[in-house]
Amino acid sequence: MQRLVIPLDERSYPILIGPRLITPEHILPYLGKGPVLVVSNETVAPLYLQAVLAALEDHPHSQLVLPDGEQWKTLATWERILQHLAEMGATRDCTLIALGGGVIGDMTGFAAAAYMRGVRFVQIPTTLLAQVDASVGGKTGVNLPAGKNLVGAFHQPAAVLIDTDTLNTLPQREFLAGLAEVVKYGLIRDAEFFSWLETNQDRLLQREADALAFAIHRSCANKAEVVAADEREQGNRALLNLGHTFGHAIETATGYTRYLHGEAVAIGMCLAAAFSEYAGLARPPLFTRTRDLLQGLGLPTTPPEDVPAATLAAHMRLDKKNLQDRLRLILLREIGDAFIDDHYNESQIIEFLQGHAG
Amino acid sequence: MQRLVIPLDERSYPILIGPRLITPEHILPYLGKGPVLVVSNETVAPLYLQAVLAALEDHPHSQLVLPDGEQWKTLATWERILQHLAEMGATRDCTLIALGGGVIGDMTGFAAAAYMRGVRFVQIPTTLLAQVDASVGGKTGVNLPAGKNLVGAFHQPAAVLIDTDTLNTLPQREFLAGLAEVVKYGLIRDAEFFSWLETNQDRLLQREADALAFAIHRSCANKAEVVAADEREQGNRALLNLGHTFGHAIETATGYTRYLHGEAVAIGMCLAAAFSEYAGLARPPLFTRTRDLLQGLGLPTTPPEDVPAATLAAHMRLDKKNLQDRLRLILLREIGDAFIDDHYNESQIIEFLQGHAG
Repeated sequence: MQRLVIPLDERSYPILIGPRLITPEHILPYLGKGPVLVVSNETVAPLYLQAVLAALEDHPHSQLVLPDGEQWKTLATWERILQHLAEMGATRDCTLIALGGGVIGDMTGFAAAAYMRGVRFVQIPTTLLAQVDASVGGKTGVNLPAGKNLVGAFHQPAAVLIDTDTLNTLPQREFLAGLAEVVKYGLIRDAEFFSWLETNQDRLLQREADALAFAIHRSCANKAEVVAADEREQGNRALLNLGHTFGHAIETATGYTRYLHGEAVAIGMCLAAAFSEYAGLARPPLFTRTRDLLQGLGLPTTPPEDVPAATLAAHMRLDKKNLQDRLRLILLREIGDAFIDDHYNESQIIEFLQGHAG
Repeated sequence: MQRLVIPLDERSYPILIGPRLITPEHILPYLGKGPVLVVSNETVAPLYLQAVLAALEDHPHSQLVLPDGEQWKTLATWERILQHLAEMGATRDCTLIALGGGVIGDMTGFAAAAYMRGVRFVQIPTTLLAQVDASVGGKTGVNLPAGKNLVGAFHQPAAVLIDTDTLNTLPQREFLAGLAEVVKYGLIRDAEFFSWLETNQDRLLQREADALAFAIHRSCANKAEVVAADEREQGNRALLNLGHTFGHAIETATGYTRYLHGEAVAIGMCLAAAFSEYAGLARPPLFTRTRDLLQGLGLPTTPPEDVPAATLAAHMRLDKKNLQDRLRLILLREIGDAFIDDHYNESQIIEFLQGHAG
């Protein structure tokens, strides 16, 4: 088992990474004295809920199984968690356990942030994406009809238990989409890790336990360093959005049905690398190394041909991180060296996209 | 105008107290660059909303007028604020202004805490209770069917503007209920202020502007000192609940319809003073001074005769601050010296209440 401490003064917490973590030994130390509510979804509960409940032993607990999917990440579903806590008579010393992917983690975390103005919660993320992304940073929230994650809170967990065994049941496409976020950390700030990923891609694709634990640990450690320096997202935390401005535009233009988030981010990272070379900010082989690794990991690397460049660029302009007419982009100087750039406008992006063959 | 700074490191904020504060000069400095949403209710909006909107001048803004009353302090009403912000396209640099009493302040503050994980808000409290209580401490929230303030956040305002002119339109009964909380600060920790209140009760009852501004300032300053030492409510902040354990039991036993909160707290403070003498923790004339001041301010000082002592004590046992079978009480050693006590149980309270003639 690997252990990583996220240093946030009195809100510091450990991330445990390894096989067989859903045990009393690893869960009980992080609970409050009051009752526990385990929140999961209809996909994950049949696989792991009994193991979590068994690990709670005699600790008083209850469970809530929610429907699975981003469309349920709403205030109405979140309110079900709060009502369940109130009906349990849960006191300030209660603990919520989030057992599932990012949607369950975000909603349960926000319920923990708001119930009695803040109670304890423990994350057991069961998707690779949630393990390397949502487990660090303390962001919780739900969607409004007008946009994703428009309501939420910063609320740090008491602990994150990343049981790598849970990846054995993850569908292949979701697993690969999670790898896109792993690659992201190498690209942003860890050239050595990027090289390791190039060398070890087959071990990852075979879901070899040691390789996965290393990649997850290194991803969380990188994210933790970025977040620790910028907990409230005022500055360099924006680097974590590498590939996301292009990626969100692709997701929006294709109605959020064609690509998983990680797949869109993979394409977005290729575009960011290509644009960095196109704009003379970086030199080859930045783009080809980025594309080859992502391709090797079975991820898409070119934008959908049926979406016009102008449409993508228009969606990018609406990104909430922009200032006036300049687009805020995360670009690359080289592998492991990302930076925030707001020199380019919509028409320059269109020109680039029209010339970019992928 | 008086000015008081609540010291909370990077979240410090000023409280301005005085007449004629709803002006551009006092409001504009505390707004973010983005749009403003003014949230008020159907009682307060006809009196002061136009003045606030006029003070915003050219700053982009919108308004939302909610129904008045504690029964509207729900997640559903809170969600209306969030939806309104989303429909405005409000960005992270937006500002919410809460114009009203405690319900409007608590709901608007919680909306500001949760929208995009936290945006700026300014409080313009228009009841004496909200001015001396909700303006310090950063507590925001809404009720669930199972209990009051079960959902919320700690979120500090950017500024609190206490325009004492707004008290001129406050109904007499609400005004007096607010004075109960003013007396509370004297009783807890400020014997000099208590004596000032004894001497100046007629000036307060005549709503003399200078006397009100002094009493509000001194109340906020006392609360601020307690809160600054205990922002997250781990210890001595509980002293602020003087009179509230008895008071909540009285409110619950009478279905929240017979007494205003401040009236129940006035009775509760008399009972706390009487119990302190009864238990040998304090000496006369603690109780008679407490009762005489509250009576002089037109507040009730004896529990309802139709509620049996056992009923009140049972409601006290259910208070969420208790530990096991001991009741957590705030008691007094003398005027200006309150402390937390958990030596007494339900049957001792019943014995006291049965013997207490008021």
